Amino acid sequence: MVTLSEVARRARVTAATVSNVLRNREKVRPETAERVLQAIAELGYRPNLNARALAQGRSSTLALMLSNISNPFYPEFVLAAERAARKAGHFLMVCNTDDDAQIGRAYLNQIAGTFADGVLVMNTDIAMNELCISAMHNGPILLAMWEHPENPPVLPCVAVDFARAGALAAQHLLELGHRNIAMLIGDGCGGLQDARSEGFRTALREGGVDPASVAQMQVRDSIDSGYAACQALLAQHPRVSAIFATNDLLAIGAIQALVSMGRAVPDDVSVIGITDIQLAHQMRPALTTVAIQTEAVAELSIRSLIRLIDEPAQQPPMVLGPPPELVTRMSTGPRKRRARA
Amino acid sequence: MVTLSEVARRARVTAATVSNVLRNREKVRPETAERVLQAIAELGYRPNLNARALAQGRSSTLALMLSNISNPFYPEFVLAAERAARKAGHFLMVCNTDDDAQIGRAYLNQIAGTFADGVLVMNTDIAMNELCISAMHNGPILLAMWEHPENPPVLPCVAVDFARAGALAAQHLLELGHRNIAMLIGDGCGGLQDARSEGFRTALREGGVDPASVAQMQVRDSIDSGYAACQALLAQHPRVSAIFATNDLLAIGAIQALVSMGRAVPDDVSVIGITDIQLAHQMRPALTTVAIQTEAVAELSIRSLIRLIDEPAQQPPMVLGPPPELVTRMSTGPRKRRARA
Repeated sequence: MVTLSEVARRARVTAATVSNVLRNREKVRPETAERVLQAIAELGYRPNLNARALAQGRSSTLALMLSNISNPFYPEFVLAAERAARKAGHFLMVCNTDDDAQIGRAYLNQIAGTFADGVLVMNTDIAMNELCISAMHNGPILLAMWEHPENPPVLPCVAVDFARAGALAAQHLLELGHRNIAMLIGDGCGGLQDARSEGFRTALREGGVDPASVAQMQVRDSIDSGYAACQALLAQHPRVSAIFATNDLLAIGAIQALVSMGRAVPDDVSVIGITDIQLAHQMRPALTTVAIQTEAVAELSIRSLIRLIDEPAQQPPMVLGPPPELVTRMSTGPRKRRARA
Repeated sequence: MVTLSEVARRARVTAATVSNVLRNREKVRPETAERVLQAIAELGYRPNLNARALAQGRSSTLALMLSNISNPFYPEFVLAAERAARKAGHFLMVCNTDDDAQIGRAYLNQIAGTFADGVLVMNTDIAMNELCISAMHNGPILLAMWEHPENPPVLPCVAVDFARAGALAAQHLLELGHRNIAMLIGDGCGGLQDARSEGFRTALREGGVDPASVAQMQVRDSIDSGYAACQALLAQHPRVSAIFATNDLLAIGAIQALVSMGRAVPDDVSVIGITDIQLAHQMRPALTTVAIQTEAVAELSIRSLIRLIDEPAQQPPMVLGPPPELVTRMSTGPRKRRARA
């Protein structure tokens, strides 16, 4: 391997000058820079700054496969996962399957066991059997953000107690006195968000509200769908005083719809979501939501995947992420009585 | 290479049954599924559905390196780029450098010429010299979203006329009668958005407004920064009737700040951005902006990179993307007179 010093020697300059040419050519006289670039070309020098990976004799790569990069939750997860991977000396490649199982399969065949030493799979539509076969032949696969801890998958996973997230949302609305509640249930990447809605229903029942009396709509997981669904919902059920959405995108869409219909949030209608994406605190009114601790779950997922690669016997079949937490902001408030003093 | 038919033969089932086991095990009797899985394991069968890549004897991979995946513009670009790559029979891996040039270099060393047949680089902080050296040794690099078409880089690029985007924003505000204008200039991934602000200033001057009279702030490119900057700006310059932000994130942050300060948008203050990210139409009031045609530019970038790989002599040094276009929505309106009838 050609070193920076050899380049410096050949170009008759100091190593610092080579470094300057590499980083900031403007600092170096053009003739000198020219000589350095020529030496680099002649020697075939490749600057490699990933010293740690070099020291270990390998710079291994992880892959993260997800279904829909344009859903803001995923970029936030990617950012945290990439930082965690890097801290541990690994690269992270991201593959977006665009909600298409066939693409997911193709990526898996392409990357698992070749480019990537292990793959983190999030909410893709690939059947569990296919994932198992890939894990068997191509190398470690870990499922991130598994939504049903009560029902662990065949492959190792990091799970989140989404039923609890739904329950926290229900308890919050009940405490504020809401009884006339509607649900927007997301049907996005990887299927219906039923752990969340079931947890919500169970807590309603425990709070004395019959879940069967709750208006609900299943919608695709996006701001636009939340907007349209909220308009349809309010047209059918004008007396609803609180809306629970199984994720923040739907909740944010619902708030925009309420604003455009002249309904005040939270004075006329309270809205609560699940996830706590960045937008949740950036919008006005800021969104009350149940945080699933995206960053912590991403870090835990990367750590688990690395352990699965390095010491598979040490990795438990399922790791449970930190518990979801209610984050109260401005989009929920006490139910207003119809006739006020 | 083991085929699906060989698996079927060994398991004494039809090819359709193997396919069913791969896709949806529930459809198949457990004993049969077990036999198929065993045959798959014994033969080492790997389902490969990327038929086109196989037919060509290669399934080549492109990489997209970007600085900050949590900025919503990038996921939108990624989605369009990934679709375009796939349509052309290529995979697309995404590398997020997290605004760190050293990470960018490490990725480049890791992927260029090994995993990836070509790399699309967007707004990273890596010095041009280093990119050139990587392109020389490791393989094709194309710069996407080059902001200065009047000053082409050494490496091939797809450029966007961002100065024109700024000019369109200025012309729109001038036509609405605004003279007391402020600027929020983003300083995000890859440096200051100066082509946009310069284009804006030039058009102001042509419209008879002295750009030196315009209040301005340089801020990091995010909703939160736009929010804080707008509050600071309005405190110093309470009579501003229109705000131009060099990108939508800042503009959306500014609108949230105005709302929380009790200033109506657009009745008290108009706001315009650049980019047209999805959020621009999803927020209320929906954001007036200058669309840079993200999807079209992403497709053009992928097509250009593939040509650079396959027929380098055919790829022009610079390709100009489609011209930016004004998208008028609800966040801009005519300047209101102080004393009205």
